[in-house]
Amino acid sequence: MQENTLENVVLFKLTSSPALAEEIACLLGVKLGEVEVRHFADGEVMARPLTNVRGKTVYVVQSTATPVAERLMELLIFIDGLRNAKAKEINLVIPYYGFCRQDRIARSGEPITAKLVADLLNTVGINRVITMDLHTPQTQGFFSCPVDDLSPTSLFGDYYRKLFKEKNIPTSSVTVVSPDHGSIHRARDLASELPDSKLAIIDKRRPAPNVAEVSQVVGEVHNQVCLVVDDIIDTAGTAIACASLLEKEGAKALYVAGTHGVLSQGAEEKIHAHSFIKDLCLTNSIEKNIPWASIISIAPMIAGVIRASELGSSVPDSWMAFY
Amino acid sequence: MQENTLENVVLFKLTSSPALAEEIACLLGVKLGEVEVRHFADGEVMARPLTNVRGKTVYVVQSTATPVAERLMELLIFIDGLRNAKAKEINLVIPYYGFCRQDRIARSGEPITAKLVADLLNTVGINRVITMDLHTPQTQGFFSCPVDDLSPTSLFGDYYRKLFKEKNIPTSSVTVVSPDHGSIHRARDLASELPDSKLAIIDKRRPAPNVAEVSQVVGEVHNQVCLVVDDIIDTAGTAIACASLLEKEGAKALYVAGTHGVLSQGAEEKIHAHSFIKDLCLTNSIEKNIPWASIISIAPMIAGVIRASELGSSVPDSWMAFY
Amino acid sequence: MQENTLENVVLFKLTSSPALAEEIACLLGVKLGEVEVRHFADGEVMARPLTNVRGKTVYVVQSTATPVAERLMELLIFIDGLRNAKAKEINLVIPYYGFCRQDRIARSGEPITAKLVADLLNTVGINRVITMDLHTPQTQGFFSCPVDDLSPTSLFGDYYRKLFKEKNIPTSSVTVVSPDHGSIHRARDLASELPDSKLAIIDKRRPAPNVAEVSQVVGEVHNQVCLVVDDIIDTAGTAIACASLLEKEGAKALYVAGTHGVLSQGAEEKIHAHSFIKDLCLTNSIEKNIPWASIISIAPMIAGVIRASELGSSVPDSWMAFY
Amino acid sequence: MQENTLENVVLFKLTSSPALAEEIACLLGVKLGEVEVRHFADGEVMARPLTNVRGKTVYVVQSTATPVAERLMELLIFIDGLRNAKAKEINLVIPYYGFCRQDRIARSGEPITAKLVADLLNTVGINRVITMDLHTPQTQGFFSCPVDDLSPTSLFGDYYRKLFKEKNIPTSSVTVVSPDHGSIHRARDLASELPDSKLAIIDKRRPAPNVAEVSQVVGEVHNQVCLVVDDIIDTAGTAIACASLLEKEGAKALYVAGTHGVLSQGAEEKIHAHSFIKDLCLTNSIEKNIPWASIISIAPMIAGVIRASELGSSVPDSWMAFY
Amino acid sequence: MQENTLENVVLFKLTSSPALAEEIACLLGVKLGEVEVRHFADGEVMARPLTNVRGKTVYVVQSTATPVAERLMELLIFIDGLRNAKAKEINLVIPYYGFCRQDRIARSGEPITAKLVADLLNTVGINRVITMDLHTPQTQGFFSCPVDDLSPTSLFGDYYRKLFKEKNIPTSSVTVVSPDHGSIHRARDLASELPDSKLAIIDKRRPAPNVAEVSQVVGEVHNQVCLVVDDIIDTAGTAIACASLLEKEGAKALYVAGTHGVLSQGAEEKIHAHSFIKDLCLTNSIEKNIPWASIISIAPMIAGVIRASELGSSVPDSWMAFY
Amino acid sequence: MQENTLENVVLFKLTSSPALAEEIACLLGVKLGEVEVRHFADGEVMARPLTNVRGKTVYVVQSTATPVAERLMELLIFIDGLRNAKAKEINLVIPYYGFCRQDRIARSGEPITAKLVADLLNTVGINRVITMDLHTPQTQGFFSCPVDDLSPTSLFGDYYRKLFKEKNIPTSSVTVVSPDHGSIHRARDLASELPDSKLAIIDKRRPAPNVAEVSQVVGEVHNQVCLVVDDIIDTAGTAIACASLLEKEGAKALYVAGTHGVLSQGAEEKIHAHSFIKDLCLTNSIEKNIPWASIISIAPMIAGVIRASELGSSVPDSWMAFY
Repeated sequence: MQENTLENVVLFKLTSSPALAEEIACLLGVKLGEVEVRHFADGEVMARPLTNVRGKTVYVVQSTATPVAERLMELLIFIDGLRNAKAKEINLVIPYYGFCRQDRIARSGEPITAKLVADLLNTVGINRVITMDLHTPQTQGFFSCPVDDLSPTSLFGDYYRKLFKEKNIPTSSVTVVSPDHGSIHRARDLASELPDSKLAIIDKRRPAPNVAEVSQVVGEVHNQVCLVVDDIIDTAGTAIACASLLEKEGAKALYVAGTHGVLSQGAEEKIHAHSFIKDLCLTNSIEKNIPWASIISIAPMIAGVIRASELGSSVPDSWMAFY
Repeated sequence: MQENTLENVVLFKLTSSPALAEEIACLLGVKLGEVEVRHFADGEVMARPLTNVRGKTVYVVQSTATPVAERLMELLIFIDGLRNAKAKEINLVIPYYGFCRQDRIARSGEPITAKLVADLLNTVGINRVITMDLHTPQTQGFFSCPVDDLSPTSLFGDYYRKLFKEKNIPTSSVTVVSPDHGSIHRARDLASELPDSKLAIIDKRRPAPNVAEVSQVVGEVHNQVCLVVDDIIDTAGTAIACASLLEKEGAKALYVAGTHGVLSQGAEEKIHAHSFIKDLCLTNSIEKNIPWASIISIAPMIAGVIRASELGSSVPDSWMAFY
Repeated sequence: MQENTLENVVLFKLTSSPALAEEIACLLGVKLGEVEVRHFADGEVMARPLTNVRGKTVYVVQSTATPVAERLMELLIFIDGLRNAKAKEINLVIPYYGFCRQDRIARSGEPITAKLVADLLNTVGINRVITMDLHTPQTQGFFSCPVDDLSPTSLFGDYYRKLFKEKNIPTSSVTVVSPDHGSIHRARDLASELPDSKLAIIDKRRPAPNVAEVSQVVGEVHNQVCLVVDDIIDTAGTAIACASLLEKEGAKALYVAGTHGVLSQGAEEKIHAHSFIKDLCLTNSIEKNIPWASIISIAPMIAGVIRASELGSSVPDSWMAFY
Repeated sequence: MQENTLENVVLFKLTSSPALAEEIACLLGVKLGEVEVRHFADGEVMARPLTNVRGKTVYVVQSTATPVAERLMELLIFIDGLRNAKAKEINLVIPYYGFCRQDRIARSGEPITAKLVADLLNTVGINRVITMDLHTPQTQGFFSCPVDDLSPTSLFGDYYRKLFKEKNIPTSSVTVVSPDHGSIHRARDLASELPDSKLAIIDKRRPAPNVAEVSQVVGEVHNQVCLVVDDIIDTAGTAIACASLLEKEGAKALYVAGTHGVLSQGAEEKIHAHSFIKDLCLTNSIEKNIPWASIISIAPMIAGVIRASELGSSVPDSWMAFY
Repeated sequence: MQENTLENVVLFKLTSSPALAEEIACLLGVKLGEVEVRHFADGEVMARPLTNVRGKTVYVVQSTATPVAERLMELLIFIDGLRNAKAKEINLVIPYYGFCRQDRIARSGEPITAKLVADLLNTVGINRVITMDLHTPQTQGFFSCPVDDLSPTSLFGDYYRKLFKEKNIPTSSVTVVSPDHGSIHRARDLASELPDSKLAIIDKRRPAPNVAEVSQVVGEVHNQVCLVVDDIIDTAGTAIACASLLEKEGAKALYVAGTHGVLSQGAEEKIHAHSFIKDLCLTNSIEKNIPWASIISIAPMIAGVIRASELGSSVPDSWMAFY
Repeated sequence: MQENTLENVVLFKLTSSPALAEEIACLLGVKLGEVEVRHFADGEVMARPLTNVRGKTVYVVQSTATPVAERLMELLIFIDGLRNAKAKEINLVIPYYGFCRQDRIARSGEPITAKLVADLLNTVGINRVITMDLHTPQTQGFFSCPVDDLSPTSLFGDYYRKLFKEKNIPTSSVTVVSPDHGSIHRARDLASELPDSKLAIIDKRRPAPNVAEVSQVVGEVHNQVCLVVDDIIDTAGTAIACASLLEKEGAKALYVAGTHGVLSQGAEEKIHAHSFIKDLCLTNSIEKNIPWASIISIAPMIAGVIRASELGSSVPDSWMAFY
């Protein structure tokens, strides 16, 4: 009887997350709606639903990852088409929310683009957003509609408990490291998943004006297996710097976990080449083909949230980014 | 004394129209404001004013041309930065307004992107838009703020009167041709600039269901010098088809005028290679380097509108797209 | 089973289109809701639903035809009453959308009233608009809600195929004439309905400054039966001018088709008296009593759209004003 | 020096209050702006400023009196034109605010049209409203912009003190009568202007269900000169009923004061013909030609408010409808 | 079968009206939802639903009575929580609407707080308000959502008919007294409930500038049993002044009816102590423990309106504040 | 000449920060505007400007500290009054922004009150906010208007450099301690102000499910003088727990710095009594009388920002909360 209540749901994929969308559809037992996405010679895009959406509850899966402006415009345009086609409810699944790092004014005249994008989405008219590990949890408040901000911590916990067990590394010899002050809540939560693990933070500071910034480790890493956890792995500069510093401080090895594998500019090569880094684990919030990395699928979690939303059941608190 | 009143104006260029912006600044006698535009490794962009804009009347020059989504995001983000930097008034100069052709629902579920983009600009907060030859004049009504929609007709009129005189072509032997039903007002207005010229329209029609579309010329073109006028020259497919049809119909030669030289996908080469096309004339609403084409600058017209706006003087009606 | 799903629909007529509303109600098999419309001594109006609308999907049928301001206020006021009475969804059927010709700024300081009226309707709160043959298709973008813009072309096609057959006029001897540049898409679409018919456009141009405007026919009309098609027949000045010009150019007879019979100021008499005009065909988007004209009912088309909307079925593309 | 600061003000009249607007302009020493108001054959209206308004503070004088829908549309359309013409600030002088009596839901499903009209004006964008004696003072809260609600009480006070003195009627023998429960604050305030005058209220009540409503006077009127004061004199039914009742109750004579002379449906004749009514006094908030009535001009009060607003000076509290 | 349709309703109480909410829930046969309301050490409050509200129609019962700012913030915060928890529809039952007396600008620069609070509620997003006896009926127009403004008149009518019968007071010897000009509609309506009762108004006026305000009774009270009716009994200053005046004018006794028992500052004691006042009757729109007063419950009326709303049935006109 | 440009500024204080407002006014050389704030018997408040504000740039100083709901309502109401009094620009100085800790959804159905309050302020209409050390910098994005978020770090830097010098404590023996993960950016920035100081973080973690949370220090504190820095000192529970933990870990002494001294529930006593805490330093963002604590005035910083804003000069980056 429960299956029936997903009958009114139409799930669409746009161009950034097709495999994830298909996995979600498969888990939910619904068919993906058909979409026409046309890219014109001049770079303009047009997207419209071909499947009938009148009176339907629509979910659109689209990470606003690289190329971020095109992905966002494609999404905005498709939402406009859904409204013209008279969809009843438009829900977005944005596994990676682009522009999320521009979330405050850090220098005079800076835009707060993470708010701006939320305003744009609100302008075209959406009912709800499901997203994953926002750069800061306060970003939820930038939206006018309800937001489900999912946390990958339980997924990473499962992965590393299994991995360290296979490698005979007791979790008490693991130190979870936050690469900077912004990811401490992630490090703390992941450490909670690994019994008796330790916590360390890498502190960057300028000792005096006009003196170069110095990084130092706050916490115990000597002879420990380190596990750096961050939300975004972009240029991999941070991961590489962590590797060098932790190696210097006497750590035994480094594992890197990142929710969103942006991985621009030869980042993959840099990580792959650094022998101190033993493993890179990412989610599929951004679809990339990296055979040597471990990819955890977030599809079951998203399918679970959609099912719970439509059937009125509840979602485990451990899935939510409640910080 | 009048110069003083432009003291409060700051003009900015973003990445799509730098030469045009400099020409406008030069004509107005104002300095361009400084901007920081950063493109990050992952394709995100950040734009903020470096020049102080507090309490200033700001004009931002940016065509939303190819790559259209990036140009638009760059503009939206910069406007957000201007607001955070407390500009008093934010005016946009958008010489070419991208997505303008998606201005109505032509098939079920289609977006009206030209309206959507106007809504996005309205959401971030703008006071006024100066643009050039909107695809349809009704697009003015998509904006919540006042719009100045400029017409290139008088510029083209000057150009062709001079050109035909040089070439000893009497304007009475010229037929201005609208390549389809959407540009007739442009053809009519340009014909009015050329004494005793004639008017023709190319009519595309499907004679019967499931029969291929046939183009035919409505009006007199035999032994005439033809001048096709359109707003956008994109793939040049239309211009090339006109050339072939008009040549077949016994026209003597073809001149092509286009307001916006989008020119995607080898369009330049196609036009350049077609021997029946004697000349291509464009405005600089989109900045391209096409040495063999004639480019008319719209900078004096835009500078004139800005000056009139700030000093309270008036603008000739012939400059406006009053259809 | 299908009939059940219209159970939640309440259809109302206001004062401008009572017969059309009744015909629609009859076709849908629903009863018209009761309305109290009071006109006070001072010219104020009050309109409220008497039928219970709580939780209902409401359709209100009202052309904003002459007297246009009263009809519009009546509609706005009634919508406010429907909201106070807690209707779930308020849909408008506006067969003729008044003020539609003020859709762009054609001279300095002009209002865009077609946009203004859409804003007013949006302010009071509507869910959707069904209308007929908007003066320009871009007017759809003036609304914040979805719009169904219906096309009378297929209705006119049926009518004229039958009529010309009765009169032994082969359609190949018919030229469909657009009376100006704004109705070419209507003429082109109607010509597509009449096999082998020709197309002509009447071009008005001022040959030189300070010289009177001259009309000329672009396309072949000599010895042809002409069929002028326009959206609005208002003062009939255009139709009369067409008749005189086409007669002079050697056409054999003239038939006139107009979607909206505004017919102000003795227009009927003028058309009726002009012997070259053989027939006037209008839709009932505006209710008038003109015994000598042919009136095509749009009720089946509107009923079909309402039924399709409520039952989730589809509407033929040929019914839509997709230009 | 003060005169200079009105240099930036442009005052416009539309069609309902031309004489009042000219009187205000004359008092302020400013010229009226030029307006084009076109009424088309089909009843549509177009209004636009001909005088340059760019950067100007505009005041538009227009009562929304009979024909009320046309007057309102004319005003809304003209405001849209002013915005397109880039006026800096748009202020309205609406001496009589039409639809003011529909200010609450008095029966199921009734519109609150006084709020609706305020919303419409807000939608087109206004900065401020100056009006006179709103039907209820709470109507101020229907507007999103600041409202100056002027009171005619001091003007009526001047008029009647002079009149009764001329006629040798001591104000202690005058009873100011509120014709119903809604005008008591007007009666009370006017009584305060006439030393030792008395106050009475006419109470209408239905003694039992299905029994006709009975009017009775609460307060002392026997042998008194009565002065009925109301905001709107529309059909004059109320005034005539008061006259009959007060005559029956032994009053000596009746004077009638009304702020807004709507005077529909032979109202003038009815009042003029009733011998017990000795005098009718109105303001010129609505322009009518009634030679036998006394008309008090509100132009000095409105000019004073405009001057105070622009020059930053203050307005006497007695001018304001502070209840 | 009807009971089923309330299955989707969740009723919540916050801190101001717990007993009333429970009585309503009991009458409707629904269970009250669970709420977490936390008051932090610093005075901040947090309120969130514990009962699942996803897809539910929610009713929240909360008078914004003393302490009015806290009650209002608690309500606004809880609504935000309900939206985050994805309630489908949020309806408010605000038996006493605080700040209702600030409903117009009575002196320069005054806020219209009754409108401001409606705007705040609208900002957080509500679907509908059920309230009781608004200070002025025009306050309905301050809300953007539909409002049900209930009237206590029929409840008071039942109460006093029974009371006077018990005490052998014929209603013809009762005068219903409005304590000022603002409650006359209440007095008139209550008088209609008491056959042959009389009506009087207490008129306060300043005979001359700088002379103390004088109260006098307009209407017949000598030897009558008086019944003063008002919406708010706050400091009881008005009631006490009425008692003194009416006693002086020869009335036989005074009964006091008030919809909302705000009763600040020792008001209870003052009324209780005044021997001329025989009885105080209030509704439970504000919950107070006053053993000596008569409290009429409005729960049946509110439950009736909720039931009618959800089941689509109608509400007696006599329940509504239709003035 | 510069002083002149503050002529148009009116500064108001409401009830929460009178001394601070006076200090700012004094530093700016402007007089404080007069306000009428009335608290009625029933707890309602009314606030309106008595000083003329027409066309003025207004700054209102009001911390939304305990009692937080009253302070906020007072502010909202006063802003409404300022709008009715026609102020040109309304800027808020909110030294302590109440409800700032409810800035994300930490449990199902929680409100984001920090966003809600920003929405409320936006609804009444404000131009700009100046605030101090928001709980998270992302809160800036909750506002629709520009926000200046000031940082107390430079003020604390000056204070502690001087203090430690007086006490002969070399800054190299000082460890700046963040009491939790949310204040690390504050600790890091303050450490940058103290040459060679160290950084530590107190990490709270639950070692296993159903095991009590354990706090541990990450970083070096043994034999160090510790300086805990936080934004809000509320119940002082955190400070007391830090003191105990740091004492146990071998620290030599503890200094406590807090931006906002909320200090509810005997917090002062607890801190004063704990002998390991040598000094408490607060700003006057909240006005309290605590003779034994050190209070740093933020008035010069706020006055500087106002002056810079009005005169177009710049503000040192070190004053801004740029994280």
